Amino acid sequence: MNKTLREIAELVNGRLLKDEQIVISGVTNIEEAGSGDITFAVPPHLKKAETSNAAAVIIPEGIEEFNKPAVIVENPRLAFTQLLEVFMPLPQVERGIHPTAVIGEKVRLGKNVAVLAHAVIDSQAEIGDNTIIYPHTYIGRQTIIGCDTIIYPNVSVRESCQIGSRVIIHSGAVVGSDGFGFVTIQGKHRKVPQVGTVIIEDDVEIGANAAIDRATTGKTIVKSGTKIDNLVHLAHNVVIGQDCFLVAQTGIAGSVTVGNHVTFAGQSGSAGHLSIGDNCVFAARCAPIGNVPDNSFYAGFPGRPHKEWLRAEAAVHKLPELIKRINELEKRLAAQEQK
Amino acid sequence: MNKTLREIAELVNGRLLKDEQIVISGVTNIEEAGSGDITFAVPPHLKKAETSNAAAVIIPEGIEEFNKPAVIVENPRLAFTQLLEVFMPLPQVERGIHPTAVIGEKVRLGKNVAVLAHAVIDSQAEIGDNTIIYPHTYIGRQTIIGCDTIIYPNVSVRESCQIGSRVIIHSGAVVGSDGFGFVTIQGKHRKVPQVGTVIIEDDVEIGANAAIDRATTGKTIVKSGTKIDNLVHLAHNVVIGQDCFLVAQTGIAGSVTVGNHVTFAGQSGSAGHLSIGDNCVFAARCAPIGNVPDNSFYAGFPGRPHKEWLRAEAAVHKLPELIKRINELEKRLAAQEQK
Amino acid sequence: MNKTLREIAELVNGRLLKDEQIVISGVTNIEEAGSGDITFAVPPHLKKAETSNAAAVIIPEGIEEFNKPAVIVENPRLAFTQLLEVFMPLPQVERGIHPTAVIGEKVRLGKNVAVLAHAVIDSQAEIGDNTIIYPHTYIGRQTIIGCDTIIYPNVSVRESCQIGSRVIIHSGAVVGSDGFGFVTIQGKHRKVPQVGTVIIEDDVEIGANAAIDRATTGKTIVKSGTKIDNLVHLAHNVVIGQDCFLVAQTGIAGSVTVGNHVTFAGQSGSAGHLSIGDNCVFAARCAPIGNVPDNSFYAGFPGRPHKEWLRAEAAVHKLPELIKRINELEKRLAAQEQK
Repeated sequence: MNKTLREIAELVNGRLLKDEQIVISGVTNIEEAGSGDITFAVPPHLKKAETSNAAAVIIPEGIEEFNKPAVIVENPRLAFTQLLEVFMPLPQVERGIHPTAVIGEKVRLGKNVAVLAHAVIDSQAEIGDNTIIYPHTYIGRQTIIGCDTIIYPNVSVRESCQIGSRVIIHSGAVVGSDGFGFVTIQGKHRKVPQVGTVIIEDDVEIGANAAIDRATTGKTIVKSGTKIDNLVHLAHNVVIGQDCFLVAQTGIAGSVTVGNHVTFAGQSGSAGHLSIGDNCVFAARCAPIGNVPDNSFYAGFPGRPHKEWLRAEAAVHKLPELIKRINELEKRLAAQEQK
Repeated sequence: MNKTLREIAELVNGRLLKDEQIVISGVTNIEEAGSGDITFAVPPHLKKAETSNAAAVIIPEGIEEFNKPAVIVENPRLAFTQLLEVFMPLPQVERGIHPTAVIGEKVRLGKNVAVLAHAVIDSQAEIGDNTIIYPHTYIGRQTIIGCDTIIYPNVSVRESCQIGSRVIIHSGAVVGSDGFGFVTIQGKHRKVPQVGTVIIEDDVEIGANAAIDRATTGKTIVKSGTKIDNLVHLAHNVVIGQDCFLVAQTGIAGSVTVGNHVTFAGQSGSAGHLSIGDNCVFAARCAPIGNVPDNSFYAGFPGRPHKEWLRAEAAVHKLPELIKRINELEKRLAAQEQK
Repeated sequence: MNKTLREIAELVNGRLLKDEQIVISGVTNIEEAGSGDITFAVPPHLKKAETSNAAAVIIPEGIEEFNKPAVIVENPRLAFTQLLEVFMPLPQVERGIHPTAVIGEKVRLGKNVAVLAHAVIDSQAEIGDNTIIYPHTYIGRQTIIGCDTIIYPNVSVRESCQIGSRVIIHSGAVVGSDGFGFVTIQGKHRKVPQVGTVIIEDDVEIGANAAIDRATTGKTIVKSGTKIDNLVHLAHNVVIGQDCFLVAQTGIAGSVTVGNHVTFAGQSGSAGHLSIGDNCVFAARCAPIGNVPDNSFYAGFPGRPHKEWLRAEAAVHKLPELIKRINELEKRLAAQEQK
């Protein structure tokens, strides 16, 4: 694909700094950019972009001096995203049912679906329009999947789950596995049947090898717009609000309710049965062990307000020095007492 | 399914508080319970159950006042489990070998097995009576699987492993992958062949996307009744005792031996080559780095007795205050010294 | 297979301590070794090997007294590895394309490949000579795989990735899943297309259920000889150097560059956008949050030099005692002030 810089500026609603006739054939990062490519840069990376091989750069408002052809926009990252969508569309997938796919009884398939090689759609499942089911993916009995959803290879969605529209599920993810529930009688663990389900709402993304358990009874829910990274664990009866980020290797224990716009950074987590407010941020490795009010920024384990955590961390670093000061005090006081 | 409250009381060996003719058609949690449902409640949730929409509630001995139809039992959670088993049986799976399943040479299949679409049973494997192998699951050469076992979709069990009876393996789990063993010669890592195996005893459950490595030589063992949650890692030559809980995202390093009735809470772990006694509990995120005696309750990293950890945590919180007190002491002592 | 101890000594370039005519039929660890087996031992395990049932033992230089037939070598672990390779070769896999495998258009297959039951090789992919693709593994469009590589069951390699020669990918691993990249506009997360790729160089091993994301643009790279354990997460645009170890459940955030010969121990990690030098070691659970120079040994979180971490840990343990000492100082000083 080729576009002039003028066409690109129109596409991203930006304004040209110079040389509108230049032709762009690719979109990539600063390091990879070659003589036909456009890239983007925000401070402190502007200099690096100026000296790169890129043909042109998307830069933010407020930069008026730049020694390369540039497009000025409000949000360079957004403009870059828009260009990637145009220049690098998803590979086309052939529509229809591959002859090796296995479709159970009473399955309902929407228009223009792709069920690829060796996929298995179990009985009474429903697949919405334009949805793509990649090879080796299993869709359980009576599970309902919305429209324009992409489910990559080797995914397992167990029975009676609901997956929304425009959802993306990456390879190896599991939705609807049994919750971890047992009743222990004289040291023996008896399984509590996990007969609930999982609801994944619209526009959710689920990372590779993530695992989302079905509820014991009722529903495990991931609300619309939430993005889940690789190897994340959601236990039974968890409810995750809208537009959250659950970064890689995070684990949320059973029956936790998380508000909207919450971020769990990498390798974080939550103890079970907690209520987490809206707009909270948990730093990497943080895990709260009590309820968390709206708008909290927590760090550490057990999770506490970030400022408190910082203060305690700083104090721990001062400890060897404190020990010296206490030793000194004791000596001086003893000398004083001798007088 | 419909049962009167009297029938339910008999089923769970309980005693009716009132209204034995009421008809129950479902079993679920307090929040989801509707007018035909029975739920269960223990303190402090009794009030919530009383004001719920549930038709009846299973409650513990010692509660004599309750404003809803109720069944009194010794262990409400057990009674609830028994009712779920009766009201919500596992979905029936058609028995036999699906025409798309691939069965290797000299495979022995028990009675009444189900090998579902696209499952692959490699040569000389054995599958016990009533066992269900879901789609896209791979059973390796010479692997032996017991009776009444359920292996969900997209599971990989490598060659020469043994899986017991009444085992449940959730989707995406891997049993028998190579242990992580290398010998490093002048900076290059040469693979140590991992020629041992894995023994999963009876009544074990293995969570979604868990990974259990085969032994270098000899056996990695998970003993009977142990329950393993999602995304747990067991390294080569680990031995886990009977009736343990390994909660989600726990990782046990190589050659660790764990006793019976041990709990590793979420995101916990163990350093390699340790011996962990019976009846130990490791709190969330805890990981011991030395041997642990029977009946220990550990927390923190490096793992230490829970009381010790609590004391250290409390002291760290007092640190900013301690620093103030030391500053004050230094000032006062200096004043004293001036006298 | 049977070999005399003399033959074994020649094989591993070792020297016999006694009884060269003894016949060895197996190779295993000390505990498992029976009367036909050879094992290996290094201090402090020599005594245990002497009293084991093993027929013979591989021991290190410098041991001249040993009460069993023995082979003395420079590196017993290496010799043991060599014997395992000879005595326990990988099971033979039938070569060719299984009739249930699905091979897309314009796929190029090398000589002597094995594409096993239900594997799917998507269009324009290339598979090098002698490479084995196990059941239920998916190789995406235009992905190129080298020679003598083994990809175990239920692996997903997405489109346009490159996998080297002599690579081993364990079951459930995912290579080329989308990076976790979003641009947030008024609280809604819009996906940044992840159009880059993944390069896995020669002699890399990837553990069960590991997840390696493709780059946003450009390449995620794992350089030659690096060994990755189970359930490890590599985010988009990560570059891992040569001959590294990433032990189980480690997570490396986006755009981190790691040097050569670096070890991340179990459950460790790295914050994003860092540069990690050569020959670094990160202890279990460690995660740096800033750049790390060559040859560093780090521990704790946030990661810091191991010595510093040890000092702070030791000081924290002394805290309850310090508090007592401060209380005492205050009392004594008050008494002094009263004088």
